[in-house]
Amino acid sequence: MPTIEDVAKLAGVSIATVSRVINGSGYVSEKTRYKVWKAIEELGYKPEISAKLLASKGKLFNIHVFASKRILSPLQSNGILGEFYGVIIRAIEENCGRLGMNVELKMLENFFESNGADGYIFIGGDLSEKTLKEIKSRKKPFVLVDHYIPGERVDCVISDGYDGALYATNYLISKGFRRIVHIHGPLHPYGFKMRYDGYKDAMEKAGLMPRFYECDDTEEGTRKVIDIMLNSYGTPEAIFTSNDSIAFWTIKRLKEHGIRVPEDVSVIGFDDIVDAENFDPPLTTLRVFKYEMGCLACKRLHELLTGINPHPVRILVFTQFVKRKSTK
Amino acid sequence: MPTIEDVAKLAGVSIATVSRVINGSGYVSEKTRYKVWKAIEELGYKPEISAKLLASKGKLFNIHVFASKRILSPLQSNGILGEFYGVIIRAIEENCGRLGMNVELKMLENFFESNGADGYIFIGGDLSEKTLKEIKSRKKPFVLVDHYIPGERVDCVISDGYDGALYATNYLISKGFRRIVHIHGPLHPYGFKMRYDGYKDAMEKAGLMPRFYECDDTEEGTRKVIDIMLNSYGTPEAIFTSNDSIAFWTIKRLKEHGIRVPEDVSVIGFDDIVDAENFDPPLTTLRVFKYEMGCLACKRLHELLTGINPHPVRILVFTQFVKRKSTK
Repeated sequence: MPTIEDVAKLAGVSIATVSRVINGSGYVSEKTRYKVWKAIEELGYKPEISAKLLASKGKLFNIHVFASKRILSPLQSNGILGEFYGVIIRAIEENCGRLGMNVELKMLENFFESNGADGYIFIGGDLSEKTLKEIKSRKKPFVLVDHYIPGERVDCVISDGYDGALYATNYLISKGFRRIVHIHGPLHPYGFKMRYDGYKDAMEKAGLMPRFYECDDTEEGTRKVIDIMLNSYGTPEAIFTSNDSIAFWTIKRLKEHGIRVPEDVSVIGFDDIVDAENFDPPLTTLRVFKYEMGCLACKRLHELLTGINPHPVRILVFTQFVKRKSTK
Repeated sequence: MPTIEDVAKLAGVSIATVSRVINGSGYVSEKTRYKVWKAIEELGYKPEISAKLLASKGKLFNIHVFASKRILSPLQSNGILGEFYGVIIRAIEENCGRLGMNVELKMLENFFESNGADGYIFIGGDLSEKTLKEIKSRKKPFVLVDHYIPGERVDCVISDGYDGALYATNYLISKGFRRIVHIHGPLHPYGFKMRYDGYKDAMEKAGLMPRFYECDDTEEGTRKVIDIMLNSYGTPEAIFTSNDSIAFWTIKRLKEHGIRVPEDVSVIGFDDIVDAENFDPPLTTLRVFKYEMGCLACKRLHELLTGINPHPVRILVFTQFVKRKSTK
C-alpha cells in the first residue's frame, strides 16, 4: 500500500504539502496541487480523511457563544420563544450537541475574561474593533451570525437581504407599480444596506427612479419621514421598508392620514417577525431563516474545527417572499 | 428507549413534522419547532441522523457536471492546468470521489438530452432561462459555481467580489490616493457588478467621488476607454479594474502614452490569473480561490443529496489581496 511519504517523494514536495493538498488547508499553488494529485493517482494512494478530523473523532469541542447584553437581556426577561436572536440561539444549542460540540452561552461584554473554548460563535452586530482584534489574536476558529464585517475576511452567516429586497421590489414592479419608495433605517450595520442595494438595483434595472427616506428605526422617526414623504413626494403606489417594525409604523401613520393599505398603498416589510401575520392588514414580507442561520453557523464552525474547507466564506441564507394582505 | 412516535405524540404533531424538525428540512413554524424540541428533551429521545443520510451510506451518487462549449473548448485544446474553469473542474473531480459521488463532465448544450443523474453542478454564467426552468423541473439537487441568479433562490458558490473590491479600494485610499478610477467590464453577468459595488461603497464611505469607465472586456475596448479617461478626467493616481486582463491592457495603453506604472499610476487587477505575476510590472491583484470554490460546491451538493441544511444559500468565498509591483 502506498503511503503519504511515497506521494511526497514522487511529487517532489514535502509531506506537509501533500497533507495541505489532501485536506484543502492552506495555500498551495495550482502547479504543486496538480503534481500532488497526479502522484496520488499514479500510485493509487487512498488519502485518509483530515488528520484533524481523525484526531477529533469522539472529542467534545467546547464552544463559547457570545451575544451582547442588548440582545440577551430582553430574551432573559421575556423568554426566548420566537424572538429573532432567541431562535438563533436555540438553533445553535440544539445543533451543536449533535455535532459533538458543548455550548456555553456568554455575555459579549465579558469576552476578555473568558477562556478555555476551542471555538466561538458571535451573534449580532455589536462587535467593537477592539473585541475583533482580541478574537483574532486568540487564533481559534470562530463564526459570526447575523453580522458581516466588510474587508475583514471573517467567516459569517447572514440572511441574503440583497436577494430578498430585489425579489420584493421586482414583485411590486410586476404588479404594475412605478412609484415605489424605500423607507430604510441606518445603513450601518450592514443588514439594512444590503436591502437598500437590492431595492435600488431592481428599480434601476426596470428604468425606475429609486426614492429613499431614511429613519432611525423608531416609531417616532418613521412618523416623521412618512410626513416628509407625503409633503414632498406625495402618496406612493407602494412602499418597501427595511424591516417589519418600520412597515408597521408606516402603515399606522398612513392610516392617520386617511391613506388605506393596501387599497391606496401596498406595503412590504422584511424579517417576518412573529407579529407580522397579526398586523392589520397582515403584512406581506420576506421571511428570514433564523433557525437555519444558527444551524449553518454550527456546521461551519465544526468544519473549521476539523480542518475541512478552512478558507473563509460568507454564507448568505436566501429569504422567502410571504404574500399576505398588505399588498394588492 | 423513547421513539420518534413518542415524541410526535407528546408534541401533538405528526411523525413527518418531527422528522422535518430533526433534519432541519422543510418549513416548520417556530412554535411547532419549539414543542418538538421540548418533547425530545423531556423524553430524552436521541434523534438519529437524517434518514436520507442513513439511506445514502455507501451509496454512490451520480453527479453530472455541466459547462458550456465556450468554457470547455479552450480547456480541451490547451489543457486545463491553471485555467480558471479548469481548476474548478479539477477540484470538483478530485473532491466528489472522496464524498462518494461519481462525476461525469458534460457539455451544457446537451443538458436537455442528459439523464440518470442524482444531482448537478453547473459551472459558469451561461445558463439560459429555458435551461434553468428545465433544471428546476427535474427536482434534483443542484449547485451553481461562479454564477448567481438574483431573485431565483438557487444554491450557488461564487467569489466575494464585493469584499475584495472594497478591500483593494480601501488599500489605495489608505496609501493616500484620492483620484481612484474603476475600469470595468459589462455589469451583467453579476461578477463585475459585485466588484463595481465594492469599489463604489469604499469610495463613498471615504467621502471620495467614484469614477467609472465601462469597456467591453477586450483589449481594443480597454484602449478606447483609457484614451477617453485621459482626455476628460486626466491621469488618475490609481486604477482598479474588473479583472487582470483589463489591468494588463490598461497598463499597456498607459505605457504607450508615456505614463509609468506604478510611478505615475498604481494599478490593481482582480482574479490573480496564472500570468499576473509575469506582467511588467508584476500585478497587484485579488486572488480568487477557484479550487476552494469547486470543493465547496461538491460539499454543498453532498449536503443537499443527504438532506442536511436543505434551505438554499449563496456561498461567497473571500478573496485575498496579493501585493506585487504595480502599486506604489
